[in-house]
Amino acid sequence: MVKKVVIIGGGDAAFQLVEFGFTRIKEADKEIKITIIKKEKRGWVSVCGLPFVLQGLYRGIDDVEVKEVQSYLDRGIDVRTETAVESIDIENNSIKIVGGEELRYDYLVIATGGRPTIPPIKGAELGGVYALRNEDDAEKIMDAMSKAKNGVVIGAGIIGLQVAVAFQRAGIKTMVTKTRPVLLRSLLDPDMASIVQQRLEKMGVEFALGRKMNAIKGNGVVKSVTIDGEEIPADIVEISTGVKPDVDLARKAGIEIGEKGGIVTDRFMHVKKGERYINNIYALGDCVEVIDAMTCRSTLSQLASTILVQGKVISDNISGISSSSEPCLSPVVTLIEDLQVGSVGVTSERAAEYGIKTIVGKASKFTRARFTPGKKPITVKLIFNAYSERLIGGQIISEETVAERINELSLSIRRNEPIKELCKRERCYDPSLTMVEDVIVTAAEDALAARH
Amino acid sequence: MVKKVVIIGGGDAAFQLVEFGFTRIKEADKEIKITIIKKEKRGWVSVCGLPFVLQGLYRGIDDVEVKEVQSYLDRGIDVRTETAVESIDIENNSIKIVGGEELRYDYLVIATGGRPTIPPIKGAELGGVYALRNEDDAEKIMDAMSKAKNGVVIGAGIIGLQVAVAFQRAGIKTMVTKTRPVLLRSLLDPDMASIVQQRLEKMGVEFALGRKMNAIKGNGVVKSVTIDGEEIPADIVEISTGVKPDVDLARKAGIEIGEKGGIVTDRFMHVKKGERYINNIYALGDCVEVIDAMTCRSTLSQLASTILVQGKVISDNISGISSSSEPCLSPVVTLIEDLQVGSVGVTSERAAEYGIKTIVGKASKFTRARFTPGKKPITVKLIFNAYSERLIGGQIISEETVAERINELSLSIRRNEPIKELCKRERCYDPSLTMVEDVIVTAAEDALAARH
Repeated sequence: MVKKVVIIGGGDAAFQLVEFGFTRIKEADKEIKITIIKKEKRGWVSVCGLPFVLQGLYRGIDDVEVKEVQSYLDRGIDVRTETAVESIDIENNSIKIVGGEELRYDYLVIATGGRPTIPPIKGAELGGVYALRNEDDAEKIMDAMSKAKNGVVIGAGIIGLQVAVAFQRAGIKTMVTKTRPVLLRSLLDPDMASIVQQRLEKMGVEFALGRKMNAIKGNGVVKSVTIDGEEIPADIVEISTGVKPDVDLARKAGIEIGEKGGIVTDRFMHVKKGERYINNIYALGDCVEVIDAMTCRSTLSQLASTILVQGKVISDNISGISSSSEPCLSPVVTLIEDLQVGSVGVTSERAAEYGIKTIVGKASKFTRARFTPGKKPITVKLIFNAYSERLIGGQIISEETVAERINELSLSIRRNEPIKELCKRERCYDPSLTMVEDVIVTAAEDALAARH
Repeated sequence: MVKKVVIIGGGDAAFQLVEFGFTRIKEADKEIKITIIKKEKRGWVSVCGLPFVLQGLYRGIDDVEVKEVQSYLDRGIDVRTETAVESIDIENNSIKIVGGEELRYDYLVIATGGRPTIPPIKGAELGGVYALRNEDDAEKIMDAMSKAKNGVVIGAGIIGLQVAVAFQRAGIKTMVTKTRPVLLRSLLDPDMASIVQQRLEKMGVEFALGRKMNAIKGNGVVKSVTIDGEEIPADIVEISTGVKPDVDLARKAGIEIGEKGGIVTDRFMHVKKGERYINNIYALGDCVEVIDAMTCRSTLSQLASTILVQGKVISDNISGISSSSEPCLSPVVTLIEDLQVGSVGVTSERAAEYGIKTIVGKASKFTRARFTPGKKPITVKLIFNAYSERLIGGQIISEETVAERINELSLSIRRNEPIKELCKRERCYDPSLTMVEDVIVTAAEDALAARH
């Protein structure tokens, strides 16, 4: 019997569920009939690629449209673009499309994603003020960038800094402002964040950190931004202060929303209504809450990489293979200017917040032997639980090999590797490619020495 | 009380023991007095860097002399160069230097390394025939390369292929010959090795694999090499058919030599004499045997990275910190032409040899998102134990990020990660730096699918 799967939302969550979830299961081809309902016009767009479109790494949005709608239609996957869902009828296993059509499902997947949180600043509605979230936003920002001279970015997370790089590279004099005094706070300790800040300052980006945003001013279109009473000229403003789960449809249908504002699921990614989890409705992506593996608390993990795992769990379960998701470590890597910045697990601040006693090790070395041309500086900070002597967090900055090292650290955390084992674990070596004692090991030795 | 440590041999083993072993232990500075006795003239030379000196990556041997003798003398470490040891007197805790001097030790470390195995080929003693092992060999080879037109490399392991690249880049028409039909046999399965072979053929290197070497011919100096009866012109020949442990001193002192020709040690790196391990004599490096973690058999692991770990174990134990070495995985990475080639654990052939039933997964993708300029092709082959469903071997070839991925695979093997966990483990993602589903995961999924 064919199982009818309806996916609400057409972002990374929906398409990864298809590509890395169902496609991998041999029988799914014949037994699963998929419908994707999305508001936007394009097929699978890499949202993570959009800041790099603004930076000019890619030639345009076409480049980051991983697959077009037609390719899905050709495979028998019904992708309905420019279509919105009005409501979910859990009792009758159906959804209602805006316009009236009803669509029955055997399995429903809620992949409604998130929307930018816009802080309550006067003038946020003015022309020239953007919040990059999807391909439509990117198109508007690119258009505005071509005419702008002065830019302000509100927020100093990944997207904010990437947009700041895009502005600066386009010749726009750019200031990044944030109420808190440090950037990339969810990823980096202040000592590591300062490496990124210095690199951006070197390219001309200015920072107004730890200062209060008063208002965005203008007359129909933005003219300036007032920070701590000081008026900064601005003809383009990007607001990147986070993404909140888009849970309107789920909430209306009575599905439980958690303390962080995301849909609550069990380990199988089933949503919850009243006292029980619903075994034919799943949710994944930016709209769900996950459990943080280090703090064991509910959190949001709004990463394409989290989706990959969740999509495998959901496709397995719908296909009859029992599969569950683990609490999240949420390893992150990103490229800011030419720095690869990576983080996994908890920062020192987060650990302190949850009362976890830590020992910390840090090392700055090179990626390759000191005598090898082309070697890059690399800084690693490792955070261990002081009692278990196991890794609970890692931060890495370099111009190469950061992502792969973060993946190694994630595995080290996941498999409870003792610090002493990390220090004595064999690593491959070739002077043209690595150092004899890798910077990760040196950082771990530093933590061990601190412990004595 | 000051402990007098005498190290016989001045290669990577001796200096890593000092730099990454003793230097890391706070108290060692005052309590340990080190003497290094070596035959060669220079300080710490990166032997692994020598093939790249021949290739022109480094300007000369000076570049790969990591530290000069004087810098050790300045630190109170007695480095005696151009000095040979005649014998070890275990009963009296002393060694005799050639020339007569006796040197007392509290702890002795045997780090005598290895010497090239020269197969019994007629003409191997001719001028123009080399075996790259140390800086003196490198100097002679460089000199000969500047005049040579036709080169033959006997052996197709890492050093052989790196020397072949050096020859070819220097404009020497080069042939690599080997009795066995595949190259890099200890690291790669034939399907993976063929990627390397093709890349070398593209740069002009010729191969005569699976063919019998008859003789090296010449009159005082080499003129040709005869392979399967065919005479190949050659004015420079490199023999790279392996390195055998240099155990003459140890054997003479009655220290046990194992089935692979290396010094036998316990987990603490103590050497053995008669029925017991000697608790003030250690050995490490190319002269010792280790236990292979996958086959649980004695083997040689002649890697600078193995030394790093052994050096930590020895320095810990001498300093009174109990520390032991694990069976070896011997992860390897090397650069051959512009290909980074990595391997860890067992190959398919080695697994078969030891009767281990396997499931194998393979994938060829890119290092970064398909739409990211500068992405590199990458091929990964993973070998799992069919019953435990744990990784036991991995092989990777690409132009970037191979070493770091091999380190991740080493950890996966070391910590017994189940294949299903590998497939669903979170990885960091940024399209400018990685793919959403990493090639390692795709290869693991391939193995899982093969299992069904």
